[in-house]
Amino acid sequence: MKQLTIIKIGGNVIDNSENLHQFLLDFTALPGDKILVHGGGKIATELGESLGIEAKMVDGRRVTDIETLRIVTMVYAGLINKNMVAQLQAKGSNAIGLTGADGNIIKAKKRPVKEIDYGFVGDLDENSVSSTMLDSLLKAGLVPVLCAITHDGDTQLLNTNADTIASSVAVAMSALYETRLVYCFEKKGVLKDVNDDDSVVREIKAEEFDGLKADGTVQGGMIPKLHNAFEAIKKGVSTVYIGKADELAELAEGTFGTSMNP
Amino acid sequence: MKQLTIIKIGGNVIDNSENLHQFLLDFTALPGDKILVHGGGKIATELGESLGIEAKMVDGRRVTDIETLRIVTMVYAGLINKNMVAQLQAKGSNAIGLTGADGNIIKAKKRPVKEIDYGFVGDLDENSVSSTMLDSLLKAGLVPVLCAITHDGDTQLLNTNADTIASSVAVAMSALYETRLVYCFEKKGVLKDVNDDDSVVREIKAEEFDGLKADGTVQGGMIPKLHNAFEAIKKGVSTVYIGKADELAELAEGTFGTSMNP
Repeated sequence: MKQLTIIKIGGNVIDNSENLHQFLLDFTALPGDKILVHGGGKIATELGESLGIEAKMVDGRRVTDIETLRIVTMVYAGLINKNMVAQLQAKGSNAIGLTGADGNIIKAKKRPVKEIDYGFVGDLDENSVSSTMLDSLLKAGLVPVLCAITHDGDTQLLNTNADTIASSVAVAMSALYETRLVYCFEKKGVLKDVNDDDSVVREIKAEEFDGLKADGTVQGGMIPKLHNAFEAIKKGVSTVYIGKADELAELAEGTFGTSMNP
Repeated sequence: MKQLTIIKIGGNVIDNSENLHQFLLDFTALPGDKILVHGGGKIATELGESLGIEAKMVDGRRVTDIETLRIVTMVYAGLINKNMVAQLQAKGSNAIGLTGADGNIIKAKKRPVKEIDYGFVGDLDENSVSSTMLDSLLKAGLVPVLCAITHDGDTQLLNTNADTIASSVAVAMSALYETRLVYCFEKKGVLKDVNDDDSVVREIKAEEFDGLKADGTVQGGMIPKLHNAFEAIKKGVSTVYIGKADELAELAEGTFGTSMNP
């Protein structure tokens, strides 16, 4: 089976032009088929402020109203995605920038209104990702660059969590490829001691996850991240890597950062 | 040879949601392989005004400075393109929204600075369009939707005239397809009498163009439009149609509007 690497980057790479330049060089150098998934970063927040549109929060949760959806569509799918594609092209990656609406690659469902109305936010399920279409693009020699916008198939664009897009794409593609998923974030990996940046847990197996939660090694925002990683592994992804973008080659080979294995 | 239709729409379709909805229905109903090219419309101007960025003019010509480039990238490639793709998907067209940077489909050259510095504006030549990549996307069952942004292959996005994109794409694709090019604009076609909307010249042959210029039938902004149309025909495009978007099926069959033939 052919190998495919899905890499997710967030604001800490996107917001710093030097970090982004170096990351895109390293990304281009990675061998084999690749898909890049990117989140937003602070540009959308800044544009909203310039336009006098405040971030809407309900019970501490961010809500995507229609004005916010316009902004993230402009910034994620336009400004960030297309500049990233132009940079990848210059570095030798034949990138193609996409939302989930393009080629109907990711069809989401608008999150149902329960206690909170999250607005135009999309949730994914096991049928959301078109592995056939992504495979066609890869076979045409293209490198898909996905932003965090999907659609509902009924004209509505939807703001969608980039971590979830990355794991859903990885799971769907694992039917066709040996798939590894790399989450780049601000830390070197899962840390034994949150105050010691070098206390990276090198490997976590599925059976160890509960123990690490119980003893407090994995806590806070890391719990859903790792939960999603192990769900992806359960559904066919070979390995999930988590660590810093600035050692991408080592991270994607598992010689740096934290590897999550079955 | 397989048929391909390239259709260009501008602000008068994009800026009116009812016009756009009807156009996208008619576009979806058109048989055969298709490529849609769209210009900007007034949303970019409005966003610029909201952000306090004035349109820059030098000697009466619009200039794309770096702030304007950011805005058109957000509006053309993000807001307009992706909403159009989501609408086409809902209507049954498997649309994929692209700039010239995506898949390196259109590589332009930044316009050289002579009397006027137009800023980040791209010019096309006969090698700009990758017919191979567009053909791969068409063969994957996709309907490319191109916005008026290209790149220079060296990280720079460039604002590029949508009429020129449409004719360059049509010329490049005429090596692989029997290609027709449809320009939708605000009039029913080339008019004998500019004050009489129904005085449409039904057909113009290349040899008649000079005479129509001389007798004043073709004047002003129509001269470069028709010049470009006949250049495209000289370089391999079968027919160029020009007329109103609201009779698209008839327009693309030549039973409405003006047809330009060799």
